[in-house]
Amino acid sequence: MGVDLGGTKMIGAVVKDGEVVSRCKNPTDPGEGPDAVFDRITATIEKAIAKADVLKEDISCICLAVPGPLDRDMGIMAYTPNLGFVNFPMKAKLENALGIPVFLENDVNAGTYGEYKCGAAKGFRHIIALFPGTGIGGGIILDGRLYRGASGNAGELGHMIIQTGGALCGCGQYGCLEALASRTALSKDAVAAASAGKAPSVFERSGSDFSQYKSRVFADAYEADEGVIRRMIHKNAYYLGIGMANCVNIFNPEVIVLGGGLVEKLGEEYIRRAEKSMRKHALDTLVKDVTVVEAELGDDAVIRGAAYILLDNME
Amino acid sequence: MGVDLGGTKMIGAVVKDGEVVSRCKNPTDPGEGPDAVFDRITATIEKAIAKADVLKEDISCICLAVPGPLDRDMGIMAYTPNLGFVNFPMKAKLENALGIPVFLENDVNAGTYGEYKCGAAKGFRHIIALFPGTGIGGGIILDGRLYRGASGNAGELGHMIIQTGGALCGCGQYGCLEALASRTALSKDAVAAASAGKAPSVFERSGSDFSQYKSRVFADAYEADEGVIRRMIHKNAYYLGIGMANCVNIFNPEVIVLGGGLVEKLGEEYIRRAEKSMRKHALDTLVKDVTVVEAELGDDAVIRGAAYILLDNME
Repeated sequence: MGVDLGGTKMIGAVVKDGEVVSRCKNPTDPGEGPDAVFDRITATIEKAIAKADVLKEDISCICLAVPGPLDRDMGIMAYTPNLGFVNFPMKAKLENALGIPVFLENDVNAGTYGEYKCGAAKGFRHIIALFPGTGIGGGIILDGRLYRGASGNAGELGHMIIQTGGALCGCGQYGCLEALASRTALSKDAVAAASAGKAPSVFERSGSDFSQYKSRVFADAYEADEGVIRRMIHKNAYYLGIGMANCVNIFNPEVIVLGGGLVEKLGEEYIRRAEKSMRKHALDTLVKDVTVVEAELGDDAVIRGAAYILLDNME
Repeated sequence: MGVDLGGTKMIGAVVKDGEVVSRCKNPTDPGEGPDAVFDRITATIEKAIAKADVLKEDISCICLAVPGPLDRDMGIMAYTPNLGFVNFPMKAKLENALGIPVFLENDVNAGTYGEYKCGAAKGFRHIIALFPGTGIGGGIILDGRLYRGASGNAGELGHMIIQTGGALCGCGQYGCLEALASRTALSKDAVAAASAGKAPSVFERSGSDFSQYKSRVFADAYEADEGVIRRMIHKNAYYLGIGMANCVNIFNPEVIVLGGGLVEKLGEEYIRRAEKSMRKHALDTLVKDVTVVEAELGDDAVIRGAAYILLDNME
């Protein structure tokens, strides 16, 4: 089974030979506390098993994909305060509750692996994936293998500083890629501009409520030709391209996969602008052979990737 | 044999079981043209063999470490204009001249590998090396293996943009790490300040001749407490630390090795300043276990690393 534990929803899926047999989706509702979230995870898994019409004993193992840093060997979610899990022994507790072996994986790694095995990056061996959303998640596949680093938490591509002293990031630093090219970066600029009367159509829709500045709103404003929003989106893509260029110069990849809500909603023109900025900012010798593709699997990327990680490491 | 082809000098060394048996050093003198440089490479190799008191037939193979991008499979130096080599079939020509199998490797990769096998990074498995000098070379060892990327030219860590729109880099971009933290970056600032009367002791020594602003000059000015130069060096170390922090967030390494002329001359205080900036700018979860060490092997790093690359890939 592959299980995707996100900030707003969780999906549990029974997967056979890489194909999803059944799935169960539930809200995460982290406000109810870690115990409630934990119980909902087990219920989601049991429901998906029941829907697949198999027995618990038929499930060889579960890969639970989670946000935030983790201790993979110990099976501990180290620090995911927005879900209420801090040093939470997720593996031991889940195995105890379900009687099935559980492995933890980073959710962005799982999503990247999904795109590699059965999505937009199939057939490539050196892959960098970037998922701009609330933050910017990064996944790294080198020579066909997920790269996790010395302690298992590599790939924080969103916290690469590309503008020393630039915009404040959620991590406390200034000028991180995700402070400049995430959906949050866009929302901050847009809510201020709209509140100042600079983007009337957006203000009419979302007012001055920061939480209402979502990817869909930006896509519509872009289409409606709202000038200030268009320029913000262009700037956002420009910065994303600088982050992509850095990845090209550092990793010499074959392909860069772009995914996540912002990319899905803004679509092709946004991707081509980011790509143009990438080609402008990277070394010619390295960037000339790089392909930029949009992620294909959407919600299925993480659950299928999680299952493939188990399949490919069965020993 | 390991051979180090640099912009100013070349070193050929016969290596047995990782230890240098003999070495021969010559100036590169690229001004005399690629044919003259090529002839000097073969002469340097033959001299080192003679000094080792062995026969050509006793040399199993040669790893020639070169600057600039290369096509490893074809044995072509793609673009090293400052040495006169552009699409130069170095492997074929050298094998023809010497009758010994030749492999090409990037010089920074070889130096990093040397520090990994018998220098400052011995015993570690996830290693990032940075060598600030004219530019900033980068070497990457992941899980004990040199990481070369899809086409063999990964590791351009010096061309990671850390200050969008910042100082002009030799590559044509703005705000690359090497535009802010190389010796060249320091020389540019220092020659201007000294010429404007802001660093009298340095002006007395190096005048307004940019080419005279070398690592030794900076180390002496630092020691002599020349205020403006000290501040420039502190800024340089600060930016280097941001590049190091990005590497920590991206790679989750165990150790960062700093080497090259500037680091050797400026020494411990410079390294500790760069480390402090790294710790300030990286994610705590990733940086807490990272060690920063100074490269140990100096001139021997490349020739010994080149030889070890052969030893470890004998098949």
